[in-house]
Formats: sequence, C-alpha cells, structure tokens
Amino acid sequence: MTDTYILTLQCPDQPGLVAEVASCITEYTGNILEAHNFNDRDAKRFFMRIEFDLAEASACAKFKDAFTVLADTKGMDWALRDKRQARKVLLLVSKFDHCLSDLLYRNRIGELDMDVVGVISNHPAESIGTTSLKHFPFWHFPITKETKPQQEAQIKQVVEETGAELVVLARYMQILSDDMSSYLEGRCINIHHSFLPGFKGAQPYHQAHARGVKMIGATAHYVTADLDEGPIIHQDVETVSHADTPQDMVRKGRDIERQVLAEAVRLHLEDRVLLDGQKTIVFRS
Amino acid sequence: MTDTYILTLQCPDQPGLVAEVASCITEYTGNILEAHNFNDRDAKRFFMRIEFDLAEASACAKFKDAFTVLADTKGMDWALRDKRQARKVLLLVSKFDHCLSDLLYRNRIGELDMDVVGVISNHPAESIGTTSLKHFPFWHFPITKETKPQQEAQIKQVVEETGAELVVLARYMQILSDDMSSYLEGRCINIHHSFLPGFKGAQPYHQAHARGVKMIGATAHYVTADLDEGPIIHQDVETVSHADTPQDMVRKGRDIERQVLAEAVRLHLEDRVLLDGQKTIVFRS
Amino acid sequence: MTDTYILTLQCPDQPGLVAEVASCITEYTGNILEAHNFNDRDAKRFFMRIEFDLAEASACAKFKDAFTVLADTKGMDWALRDKRQARKVLLLVSKFDHCLSDLLYRNRIGELDMDVVGVISNHPAESIGTTSLKHFPFWHFPITKETKPQQEAQIKQVVEETGAELVVLARYMQILSDDMSSYLEGRCINIHHSFLPGFKGAQPYHQAHARGVKMIGATAHYVTADLDEGPIIHQDVETVSHADTPQDMVRKGRDIERQVLAEAVRLHLEDRVLLDGQKTIVFRS
Amino acid sequence: MTDTYILTLQCPDQPGLVAEVASCITEYTGNILEAHNFNDRDAKRFFMRIEFDLAEASACAKFKDAFTVLADTKGMDWALRDKRQARKVLLLVSKFDHCLSDLLYRNRIGELDMDVVGVISNHPAESIGTTSLKHFPFWHFPITKETKPQQEAQIKQVVEETGAELVVLARYMQILSDDMSSYLEGRCINIHHSFLPGFKGAQPYHQAHARGVKMIGATAHYVTADLDEGPIIHQDVETVSHADTPQDMVRKGRDIERQVLAEAVRLHLEDRVLLDGQKTIVFRS
Repeated sequence: MTDTYILTLQCPDQPGLVAEVASCITEYTGNILEAHNFNDRDAKRFFMRIEFDLAEASACAKFKDAFTVLADTKGMDWALRDKRQARKVLLLVSKFDHCLSDLLYRNRIGELDMDVVGVISNHPAESIGTTSLKHFPFWHFPITKETKPQQEAQIKQVVEETGAELVVLARYMQILSDDMSSYLEGRCINIHHSFLPGFKGAQPYHQAHARGVKMIGATAHYVTADLDEGPIIHQDVETVSHADTPQDMVRKGRDIERQVLAEAVRLHLEDRVLLDGQKTIVFRS
Repeated sequence: MTDTYILTLQCPDQPGLVAEVASCITEYTGNILEAHNFNDRDAKRFFMRIEFDLAEASACAKFKDAFTVLADTKGMDWALRDKRQARKVLLLVSKFDHCLSDLLYRNRIGELDMDVVGVISNHPAESIGTTSLKHFPFWHFPITKETKPQQEAQIKQVVEETGAELVVLARYMQILSDDMSSYLEGRCINIHHSFLPGFKGAQPYHQAHARGVKMIGATAHYVTADLDEGPIIHQDVETVSHADTPQDMVRKGRDIERQVLAEAVRLHLEDRVLLDGQKTIVFRS
Repeated sequence: MTDTYILTLQCPDQPGLVAEVASCITEYTGNILEAHNFNDRDAKRFFMRIEFDLAEASACAKFKDAFTVLADTKGMDWALRDKRQARKVLLLVSKFDHCLSDLLYRNRIGELDMDVVGVISNHPAESIGTTSLKHFPFWHFPITKETKPQQEAQIKQVVEETGAELVVLARYMQILSDDMSSYLEGRCINIHHSFLPGFKGAQPYHQAHARGVKMIGATAHYVTADLDEGPIIHQDVETVSHADTPQDMVRKGRDIERQVLAEAVRLHLEDRVLLDGQKTIVFRS
Repeated sequence: MTDTYILTLQCPDQPGLVAEVASCITEYTGNILEAHNFNDRDAKRFFMRIEFDLAEASACAKFKDAFTVLADTKGMDWALRDKRQARKVLLLVSKFDHCLSDLLYRNRIGELDMDVVGVISNHPAESIGTTSLKHFPFWHFPITKETKPQQEAQIKQVVEETGAELVVLARYMQILSDDMSSYLEGRCINIHHSFLPGFKGAQPYHQAHARGVKMIGATAHYVTADLDEGPIIHQDVETVSHADTPQDMVRKGRDIERQVLAEAVRLHLEDRVLLDGQKTIVFRS
C-alpha cells in the first residue's frame, strides 16, 4: 500500500518553481494527486500545496534530503506531513459549548481527522454540558485579571506536555495576552461573530438588533496580538429579520459560529491554509 | 373587477388593533388578501401592512373616511395606496451604470412596477453606456464642491416638478448634504458595499483584498444625514478567495450591489418596508 | 405574569375572517404578539397563525368556548396551544446518528423546545455513538422483511404509551408501511437528500458524483404513504465540485441534512407549519 | 510587455506529468501564474490548466513545437490560447431576453471577455426588447416542425461564416436535433431551471408551485443529444415560499437563470471548464 504525503511551501516567486518541485517528487517515485499553487503578485511570493503518493515507502527519507537542498536554494518555508498522522489538537472553551460539542462530534464521526489531546476551560467541567467531555483529559484553569499570567503559563505547559500542534479557541471568552498570542502564532484558531457593518464593544448581537441588520455572520481567523484582526480563514453569514430578537440572533449566530469554526479547523488540519502576511491562502479541494 | 389596495400603518401598541383594523376593512366590503403585523416590544410600537380587495369600488372613499377616524383615535401614521398606481421614481447615477441598467431592465420586463420619471447624472448622457437611457427624460447636473447647493437645488426642482415619490441613488457617487438628506427622508434609497469587518475610507475593495476577507457584500438603506448609516432595507453577500484580485472583487461587488438594490427598491415599491426609528420592518410575502 | 398561546387555523376563505378571529381574542383580554395569514387562492382556503398573551389567565377557558362557536360557524380546523407546554417528541434512528445527535444537542441548549420521550432504533444502543443517549428511554426494535408489521406495532405502542405528538425520522433508514404512514400523518417528519436533478435508487451520492452535479441538498417533509413525496417543510443546499469524492459529498450531505431537519423540527414545534393539501404553509417569524 | 497564454490538457494519468509540463514551460522562458490539476481516479485521467507568461514572445512558436512532441508521447488532448484573443460567441434567443440582455451588458462593461459575432432568434428583432441588439448582426430564422432541418442548417452556416467558437442558448426555447447537438458538442452552453426534486414536462414552475418546493434553481450545461442532461458547468438556487405565486417563481427563476448562465459562460471563456465524459472539471481561480 502506498503512503500519502502533503507538502506545503512558500518562497519568493521565481521562474521554474512548479517544474523543480514536481520533478523532485517524480524522481523519488512520487505521484501527484492534487496540486495547488498561487502567486501573490503584490508580495512577489509563491505558495504551493501538493498531495502525493510515494510508490516506495523507503523513498521518503531520500526525498526529504533532496527536497531540503532544493528548498534551501529557493529560500522556501516548507513542511512535509504524512497524511496518516493526525494532528494533536487542544481545545479551549469557556461556558458556551456549542463549538466544542460540534468539534468533538465531527471528530467522532471521522469528519475532522484530529487527535484531541485535551480540553481546557476557565470553568469547571460540571458547568459544561458536553457529555463526551469525559473521554478526554480536562484541565480547569480559573482566571482572574491578577492570575492571567499564571493561567496562561499553565496553558503553555499543557501545550508543551501534550505536544499540541493546534489550539482551537472554541468560544474561549478570554483575550490572550500578546505574549501568548505570539507563542501560538499560526497554530491557534479563534471564532468570532461578524456583522455588516461591524460593531465594537459588548453585546454585539444587541447592537446588531438595534441597528436592524438583515444578516449576521462569523469569522474564523488565526490569533495574533491584534485582537480579532488576525488572518481570516473562513467566513459565512445567515439572514435575520426585524422579527428576530437579540436572543434569536444569538441562536442563529451559534449555528454560524460552529459551522465556520469547524470548516476552518478542517482546512487547517488538511494543510490547506498558508499564511501570507496578514492574509491566508486557502487551497480548497 | 375588484381593486386591490395596500394599507400600511404604525402606532403605539395597544390591545385590539388587529381586530379594529380588520373589522373596518370588512365593514366596507373589503377582503384581506395578505396581512402582516409586528410589535416592536422595545419601542412599544405596532406595525401593519394589509393588502385587500374592495368588492365595491365605490366603497373606497367611505372606507377612507371611516379609517381616518379610527387612525386618529389610535394615533396612527398610515397610508393607503391603490395597487394599480405605479410609484413615480427618479434615478440618480454617476458613471457606473450597472445598477441603473439593471433597474431599467427589470422595469421593462415588469419585475419592478414603477414609473421612471427620469434620470439625473453629474456626468453627461454620452458617458453612460445604458442604451435604454434615451427612453427617459435625462438631466445632466454637473457638480463641484462650490456648486453643490445649486446642484442639489436643481435635483429638488426635478423631484418637485416630476412628482417623484422615490429617489434611487443607483451608484450616485456624491454625498447628499444634510439638508438634502432630510428633504428626501424615507423616500431615498442608497446602495453601498459592505464587508465583514467593515472598512472606512477610499478603495474599500482594495482594503478588503489586503485584509484577505472571504466574503464581500452590499447594503441597501434609506438615506439619512448620517452617511451610510440609514435604516437598512436589504443585505446580501458573495464569497471571494485569495485568488480574487481587487478587480475581481469589484466585479463580484457589482453583481451583489445591483441585486441588493433591485430587491430593496422592489420591497419599497410594494410598500413592504416600514420605518421604525433607525430600523426597518420588512414584511416579505 | 401573562401566558402566551398559539392559535393555528384553516378554513374555506370568506370575508371578515381576520376581523372576527382578532375580535374574539381581543374580547377575552388577549393581546396579539405575532399574526400571519395566507389565502391559497387556488384552493380558496384561508390559513392563520396567531401568537397572543392573555391578560387574565382565567380567560382562557372562556375564550376557548367562544372560539369553538366561531370556528364551527366558519368550518375551521384549528388548534390552541399553551406555549409553555413543550411537545412530546419521539426520535427514530438507524445507524447514522448525525441528525439524532444534533437534535439532542439543540434540545439541551434550549434551541429546540421539545420533551424527548424516547429514542427508538432498529440497531442496539451500543452501535449508536451519541453519548447523551443514556439520558433518554431507548427501545431497540430490530426489523426484518418478515417482522415489519410486528416492529411497527411496537413503535405504535410506544407512540401511544408516551403520548408522543411528533415522530422524527432522524435518518431512520426504514420505509414506513402505508398503514404506519397514515397513522402518523401530519406528525412525522423525515429528512432525505435532494439533488438538482433528482436521482432514484441506491447510492444517490455516488450517482450525483457520476453526474458531476455542482450542488447537493436536503429536504425535510412530512411522511405520507407516497415515499419521499410528502409535503415539503424546508430545503437547503451546499455547493460541491469535481474534486469532491462521493465520500466528501456524503460528509457535506450530512451537514445539510442535520441543519435542514433541525430547522423543520423547530418550525413544527413552534406551530409554524400548516398543511395545505400536498403543500405546507410556513409562517416564519 | 509579456504575453499571457492558457494551456489546457487532459490525458491518461501517469507519473511525472506536472513535472514534465511545467519543465517544458520553464524551458521556453515561461513563468507560471496559475496552475490547477486534477486526477479523476475512477477514469484514471489527468486534467490540467496552466496560465503563464512568456518572457520572450518569440518563444511561443518554439514552445508549441516542443509541447506538441510531449503531448503526443503522453496521449494528450490539449489547447493553447493567447489570452488577449477574445473568443467569438454566437447568441441564440427566443422571446425571453433576460439572459441575452444580461450577457450583452456584462460584455459591454468588460466582465465577459467575448467577441459577440451575432444574435440569432426564431422571432423577429422587434419582438425582443433588448435595446443594444442593434449593435450586433442579427438573423431571424423562424422555425416550424417541418422547417427545423433547414433552420438548423441556417444556424450552422452562420456558425461557419462567423467562425463562432461558442454558441450560447440564452433561453432559446427550441430543442436542438441530435445532429445539431453533435455538431456543437463541447462548444454550446444551455441554461435551464432546476428543482429539488426535478419536474418533467411543461410549466415546471407551476408544477414546483403545486408541489410546494422551498427552493428553485438553474443549471448551465453543455448541450448533448440527451436533452438537458449534458455535462453540468454551474448551478445555483434561490429560496421561495408558499406565498410565491408561479409568477413570482418565474421572476426569481429568471434571476437565477441569468446569473448561472453568465457564470458558466465566464468559466468557459476563461478555459476553466474541461470535459470529463459526462462531467466537467471546473478550475476556479
């Protein structure tokens, strides 16, 4: 049986990149199953994602060596992953568990191929309704304004010990410190509500209701120090009407939030999201 | 043959309103075809739209008299319209004519039941591509920072002389003065692009591209002195990706803009939009 | 505190219906919160849904008596429900539990106001992943071609004993007999995949894949003897592409199915769906 | 200034294809701007679309020679097009001109890069409302059951004389003969309404209304001898409700039809649609 690998890379744009990458794969018995590339002409940067089989499993180490040489020449940031290796994922949640519940469900039925190494909450497990929580390690790390540095240190320690490759803020209602955001850069996904136009401050659904918007949405993005302004991975919306109360909007918002977050996590787990400065390149199949 | 009327009203909420309005219609040989009502519980205000046939055309004047008495008792703002009377509409446009062209087309095929009394532009007719422009009165009112008051006075005069009941800013790239906005309050619809999150300032599609949004949209709203912040009538969005250039976004934005504007104009022409402070009540069929 | 009631009715169309219904409510201290009505002009039939508060709880019995007289005069089918009384719901499932899981989750967080009286499956509880299953009575009723009548008799008995007012086929992969379908008429909701164009027979997602459709969908409908052809309550779709394998389509189909079914169940639970021959009238808020 | 070319190809799947194609382009001074490929694993067939610049315009002829050799070795069907060369397009229409009007408008504002070589209708020009019709050659070819072969011969002659590369049936309400369908295979796009479930026969919107569907759609596809069953290029839907009359559905259907057709034509004009038996591969940017 053949093994499937996913290669992602980015580098300054230069002629011949597709040819050289593809040739290297071919040389080491690889057969390309799916390939995407994109030139960001403004940034003069090249992005690529290739999924390929290796006819001979033993060829992988040799391919890696050869590709390292090529990558160095071209100034590539790159990663190679064996598709069978599910990513280790840590989930953070506060009290609202609609996103957590949805992610665990999709994981269970095989929709999200991830290895959930645990769940962290600033609330005790009893206050979270998700019944499948008991199947996973759980840490309760309460937080106050004063203990924030210590609490984040606890989270960091769990990240280190579990080897978590992705942290998902599944409605974790705490703002990460700049330090924590930097630590998790490119490997932490957050979900937040979005509106046309946007609203700042507390109770956004109430603001949206007062303004009479006809549409509410959600945005999943990588966490950066700039709150809610990290690179966007996925967005979607739902229609609302004057008859929707703020509570109805919250209910509809929940549905959008969990769908958008699940899709963003899926795209990340399949290595379909590449960072391009403040933007993302998303190579959908 | 029976005639169809549309009655719209709003007043402070109080028990028995539906019963009294419906009874009054029934008494004067009316048969209700479609009725909507809504209580804004925050504002304690009641809104209603009723479409009804009168079995006897002669009953209309008597109904009007009787209803005036009822409306006065209840403190109603109300309007009664003979459905066969198409609204007089004035269209304002600058150089981009995708919205203008779309509105005229939908009017021609009977989708938008309006009587287009003319088109005003700050550019000459020759610079606008719409070929069907020649079927309508056209005024070219150039505008500069200095001549804005005079130009708006010209527009006002056309509104007065044509008896225009609705003014549509079909990508009219000028900001109306506070005075003009007040003059047209509740009878002037504008369209503008919308994003999640929003962007201020020039070249919004370029900003949206730089930010890597995955969705662009448009909002149709009544014009108020507060620029682009009037009561929202309709909104919609379209997906975009990293591969969409700012030009692609502008192209997709055009499609959303013209659809959203056409739908908002249709809803207004059918008396389905009632103003509720900064919000609208939209009674869809 | 006031109580909220939902009145739904249908009858042959005749002048004065809105007035008489609303007057009756007003007379017995009722205040209308939300009202919808619709005339099916082809069938000459009138449909109405009214949500109202009663200022005096004691007025309810008197209102009911008075309304019964009115309803008889007009030839109405009608129902009055105290909004606080959650409907008793029985869920049927086979092996795929994405719909079951979703309905139970939405019930738990208060999105679906129903009293789940139990779950029936033709498979044992162990083969169903849903962890929250243990909170509800569960019956395992295996079925073969030969034992179908007996198995359906078992289901009927549970319906009777639990007083279930609604039966939801949450991916219950058995076709109900004509007899069973008639028994559950108007109170049994099914979900099935839908395509443009449609496909008959086994493995529809594989057929859709072979045909290269760009969109897959789901339809929730009331069960009738005519398989998959009962009155439609709700439909929605999702885009797919050539790159989606049949398995991807199944995954996307699952998401659409559970959303469409949950929405249909919500509409039914809120008495927003009225049967109009082979069609439904859906009064959305 | 550099020239942009679009290369599309398909062939039996075999290792090394991406590498060899990309190397060939690189060798002749080409720089790849956008590349897509797809393996149809069932059909064991490989599909590719590459957009690239040539640093030296003179390299094009040499590249073509070299690529021809490669293509022959691999058994490729392929095409190379200079992106600046707009495709010649012939539009066929009956009485309903919403699609025709929309295509001409999008062409005028630069959204659809095509060279409209003329319009053919089975009705006289006067019966078609589109005002911009006068800018294009127009042929009125009436048709009856008896004269169908002669009428189709007239169309063929126009195709030949104008050198039309694409024929768009923009609501051309005639069924092409098998012979005509074969003649236009892979270069003739049709639009038709679509429903979940589908409906056969006349007045589909009336059937859909009678069935109470909650969604109507449209499908754009290549014409084949099998009526309305050719390879699907694009599909989309719109929601409808019980309150929509068959006329409302027709109105909404028009909007979906023109959008879906315009998108399908755009994708074809940009060489983004590759035929894969009864399916299409659509490489979106």
